[in-house]
Amino acid sequence: MKAVLMDGFGGLEVLKVGETDKPSPQEGQVLVKVVATSVNRPDLVQREGKYPPPPGDSEILGLEVSGTIAELGPGVAGWAVGDRVISLVGGGGYAEYAVAYASHLMRIPDSLSFEEAACICESYITAFLNVFMIGDFQDGQTAILHGGGGGVNTAAVQLCRALTPNSRLIVTAHPSKMERVSDLGADLVINYLENPDFTDIVKEYTGKKGVNLILDHVGAKYLAPNMNSLGYKGKLVIIGVISGIKAELNLALMMVKRQQIIGSVLRSRPVPEKAEIVAEFTRRALPKFADRTIVPIIEKAFSIENVVDAHRMMEEDKHFGKIVVKIT
Amino acid sequence: MKAVLMDGFGGLEVLKVGETDKPSPQEGQVLVKVVATSVNRPDLVQREGKYPPPPGDSEILGLEVSGTIAELGPGVAGWAVGDRVISLVGGGGYAEYAVAYASHLMRIPDSLSFEEAACICESYITAFLNVFMIGDFQDGQTAILHGGGGGVNTAAVQLCRALTPNSRLIVTAHPSKMERVSDLGADLVINYLENPDFTDIVKEYTGKKGVNLILDHVGAKYLAPNMNSLGYKGKLVIIGVISGIKAELNLALMMVKRQQIIGSVLRSRPVPEKAEIVAEFTRRALPKFADRTIVPIIEKAFSIENVVDAHRMMEEDKHFGKIVVKIT
Repeated sequence: MKAVLMDGFGGLEVLKVGETDKPSPQEGQVLVKVVATSVNRPDLVQREGKYPPPPGDSEILGLEVSGTIAELGPGVAGWAVGDRVISLVGGGGYAEYAVAYASHLMRIPDSLSFEEAACICESYITAFLNVFMIGDFQDGQTAILHGGGGGVNTAAVQLCRALTPNSRLIVTAHPSKMERVSDLGADLVINYLENPDFTDIVKEYTGKKGVNLILDHVGAKYLAPNMNSLGYKGKLVIIGVISGIKAELNLALMMVKRQQIIGSVLRSRPVPEKAEIVAEFTRRALPKFADRTIVPIIEKAFSIENVVDAHRMMEEDKHFGKIVVKIT
Repeated sequence: MKAVLMDGFGGLEVLKVGETDKPSPQEGQVLVKVVATSVNRPDLVQREGKYPPPPGDSEILGLEVSGTIAELGPGVAGWAVGDRVISLVGGGGYAEYAVAYASHLMRIPDSLSFEEAACICESYITAFLNVFMIGDFQDGQTAILHGGGGGVNTAAVQLCRALTPNSRLIVTAHPSKMERVSDLGADLVINYLENPDFTDIVKEYTGKKGVNLILDHVGAKYLAPNMNSLGYKGKLVIIGVISGIKAELNLALMMVKRQQIIGSVLRSRPVPEKAEIVAEFTRRALPKFADRTIVPIIEKAFSIENVVDAHRMMEEDKHFGKIVVKIT
């Protein structure tokens, strides 16, 4: 089968399209004929050799697939060859065929194209898991969602607008993306270049109360302003540490304000846990895609032959929403 | 009524026994004729002027009472004058009479003396709330409980032994208290003077897996060893910061291991939240006192006239378990 392979680890130059063996679905798995996948930031980190796939998962890049079922593994019920599906995968999405756990599959609503559907699993499930399941975000509450314009951020804004219409969303963004973030549904957009410490702006916006939830992938640099912006019983969910990993924490404030810091990852979770998350996402969020309340935002769809351009676009960080790779 | 009053804030010398007005129960409250109360560390901090009572609560020291109902306020049902009760109070326990919310009352089991019952509310509810309700500690899991021999620590060890008999308990303690901590039910006792960094001991004891829960009142000094001792999905619950408030946190480890840090206080919680906690404690823990599976450990019971000696004993930190003050 055709797949994106790598000449070792490194920059864009290690990516190449080639031929490799088609995988076989094991107990509880299906083989998916992949139509499209999307680029997620962890793909770049994995390409650089800094984010190996969990044991047992494919070494090929790609954390999600959109396509049709080509083959059922042993013990799979409720699915048929030809079904249009999307799935999280531990690896292997940048290929013509990938194996996925049947318990992780979601049926693609008829109203969605394969390219649109290819945007859902990693970004929207990450946002849903951390904002709604871990963060227990409720309508009427206020959140800070960092990384305006990114895949997880745009997903989080859209999910909040759809599931908690009266929530208030504060988004930090690069000035070039602020207008689109606002159009997407953010209530307050903060220019992060001008405001590396956004505490005063958040305090003023919330009448000094602070926010209920912060979804953060920035890490060390934002720990202090995040904690200072968090209100009583607020939760800071850490899903990335791109600015650094170590920072000073004020434990007394955390205690008095009964705050929580929660570390969270999706990829390395056990199969049954991911299945529970997918089930909850299918129940609460997927209908919003089916009726097109939420439409995934695609910056550009590249063919597999141009996967280098797709990675370059993410590295340059000027995109808004998702970058898709069409496999077939 | 007789009460412990203060000549301003400061050391032991500010405490004096005197006369003051009897409080009146308001809507939903009862007046308790206090037989005994216990000394809790926050009392010392409040005496020093560093921990004011929540707005609306008595300025008199004392976070819990054990006694009989002397009067019912408006709107109180299900309780009668003369009932033997204990209760958390926002303040006012060091006095002949104190007001308590009816929703915070627990009936004293016949098998307990007033002195024993005076030990339950602050220490055992704090331990129960943070270990079982917030920490979701399950049988078979492993916890580190710091402060061996202290009121909350002995309460936590006894509650874990009673409610999660197959849990493994690691307790850090001063060498003078290690033997009694072990006798009380700790599985591994660590000498904290010799092992300010207990990580290696915990790692060895848990086969490198780390623990599920840490109940910590030490704060800054222990943040690094606590996080290094915490296992996958582990929770660090911060209920005090006696060593300092600021320390460096490794966010990357927290993320990959899906760990949580949770700040927690009891006293400043809203009345309805405390009522829920008391209800859960009454359901799960109080029967263990009634059948004397758990017997509060009283180091010494002082008369109200000797309240200075009671505070001195806690300051010297050589006690094991609770220090009681008999009011009448």
